[in-house]
Amino acid sequence: MRTIFNADHRFHQSPGELLNGAYVPAFEKPERADLIRAEIERARLGEISAPQPYPLSKLTAIHDAGMIDLFQHAYAEWQEAGRSGGAIPFTFGTRGVREDRVPRCLDGKLAYYSFDAGTPITPTSWRAIKSSADTALTASSLITQGERSAFALCRPPGHHAGTDHYGGYCFLNNAAIAAQAMLGDGAARIAILDIDYHHGNGTQQIFYRRNDVLFVSIHGDPDAEFPYRLGFADETGAADGEGMNANYPLPLGTEWPAWSAALNHGLTRIQTYRPDIVIVSLGVDTYKHDPISQFRLEREHFTRIGERIASLARPTMFVMEGGYAVEDIGINVVNVLSGFETA
Amino acid sequence: MRTIFNADHRFHQSPGELLNGAYVPAFEKPERADLIRAEIERARLGEISAPQPYPLSKLTAIHDAGMIDLFQHAYAEWQEAGRSGGAIPFTFGTRGVREDRVPRCLDGKLAYYSFDAGTPITPTSWRAIKSSADTALTASSLITQGERSAFALCRPPGHHAGTDHYGGYCFLNNAAIAAQAMLGDGAARIAILDIDYHHGNGTQQIFYRRNDVLFVSIHGDPDAEFPYRLGFADETGAADGEGMNANYPLPLGTEWPAWSAALNHGLTRIQTYRPDIVIVSLGVDTYKHDPISQFRLEREHFTRIGERIASLARPTMFVMEGGYAVEDIGINVVNVLSGFETA
Ligand SMILES: [Zn+2]
Ligand SMILES: [Zn+2]
Repeated sequence: MRTIFNADHRFHQSPGELLNGAYVPAFEKPERADLIRAEIERARLGEISAPQPYPLSKLTAIHDAGMIDLFQHAYAEWQEAGRSGGAIPFTFGTRGVREDRVPRCLDGKLAYYSFDAGTPITPTSWRAIKSSADTALTASSLITQGERSAFALCRPPGHHAGTDHYGGYCFLNNAAIAAQAMLGDGAARIAILDIDYHHGNGTQQIFYRRNDVLFVSIHGDPDAEFPYRLGFADETGAADGEGMNANYPLPLGTEWPAWSAALNHGLTRIQTYRPDIVIVSLGVDTYKHDPISQFRLEREHFTRIGERIASLARPTMFVMEGGYAVEDIGINVVNVLSGFETA
Repeated sequence: MRTIFNADHRFHQSPGELLNGAYVPAFEKPERADLIRAEIERARLGEISAPQPYPLSKLTAIHDAGMIDLFQHAYAEWQEAGRSGGAIPFTFGTRGVREDRVPRCLDGKLAYYSFDAGTPITPTSWRAIKSSADTALTASSLITQGERSAFALCRPPGHHAGTDHYGGYCFLNNAAIAAQAMLGDGAARIAILDIDYHHGNGTQQIFYRRNDVLFVSIHGDPDAEFPYRLGFADETGAADGEGMNANYPLPLGTEWPAWSAALNHGLTRIQTYRPDIVIVSLGVDTYKHDPISQFRLEREHFTRIGERIASLARPTMFVMEGGYAVEDIGINVVNVLSGFETA
């Protein structure tokens, strides 16, 4: 399996995040991607090549242009105001405020677009954000050109980013951008399987009213886990997308048997849809040692996951999302990919 | 003029807030109210008496019961999770999330109800929050029992709190709770004049569709200033409340002449409405030395403001909102009140 990756992800390094009432060092850090890359090389999974640059139109096909502009220019304004670190909001959206206009000043724009204080725009973040989307787009081209599989080693991750909102370490929804590109390249139906520990609220929101992308997600019960406000089982899609969204929220503490049963359900849904291509939003924060997550999968289960996904027998693109147990992140990711390869 | 006040406000002391990308000491601190009280005594403005306790039904007449419950019980859960400081969210509302259900866990509830990280629920905050509302309710009784004026020295402040959302240092909307109580006591029409530097988004949201409360606010342009998402001139009310909301957003740097002209407009609106009672949401963060605000009123202008409000010749209740230049906060507040008294 070919991996798309380069070192530009290091241009995004978060100075911190709010957790348990304190501003603490960020969990989403550059070594995550570097350790995965090292393990791919060690395991000889296949060639690693750099992403190609794509035009911004590939991003605006999914995202609000004002938000993309913010990623590019927020820091200059932030710095001009005498601030350092990363540009983050200090106030946020809520019920009862206007959604029909974007505030003109920087703090207002940050408040309009961002839903947390843990996704800072640093002086060089845009280079990493754009490279991460290019990584997904380059991998998507491999698939639409006939490869059986590809791995987009994206960082920053993407599945919490919606059309016009970002947060949860995610700026652009790499998986959604890739799906849209594949549809443009001739695919008629895409299935996105999101196996990150957290619900992919951004991906769900982007495709909720569409029938050309099926979204299936297995994740921590939002009544108990981030993002809290989306990811319940009764969210099944709307309008043209009715029936095209399938959430499998599972309790904190879930172990392999229950997780695996949900995966089988989800795979059946995908099989029934008969997609041209499968995109896997690959988070390994379902791992038992993940520092911010509460499922209990073991290393070998990641191999099983790869094998099961292979059983769909569809061209498959893996897109890196979360996973914060850095010491084992490479092994867990490579287990999924090599499980898929050898199935 | 009688002042309602007691020391219970000290039970709320914020450990900090997010500002310019850092977690910094809170601007909204107990000495604010204590300094105002001291200046009232020094100036012999009138008797200071303690608030009476009111039933929770006076609060639920305005606010979501789940939010009030959160103020009472969040800290216990927060502490049980091994956390200290004050209970604050780490993620927030945004477009595309569900509004039809309140998450069950603490972090989810905080994310649902709060719109910033600067309004923490500490172990004893509820006692101060409740006392602040009782202060406004006690002052409202003085007015409905026939007094010409009263000052509710509330802390924490209230005008950013809406029916089911809180933030901006505000938990319960003291002015709105008082207005509702006055209507229950027989008033037919209330006008709320909000002269705090910041738009009173909570008060506007609460009464936006009602015609028994006119809301008039003079504040920093939301395109440039908190709360950013509400407070524009084209927000004039809706449904039964059409024409019952008047916003006067003014540019940063506004000085007395322009501010004063807006006040005259606002007072004319109120005069035309012929309210039974006027409630003044009294913030003095319009002061030129305020550390987080950008208007340029001088000490003597606060006296002029009090005189002008007196020209309405209506029973008038003042409710304390913002003002963070602590060294002069007492003088500026007392200037408004004594300007009113001696007019
Ligand atoms: Zn995750
Ligand atoms: Zn204010």
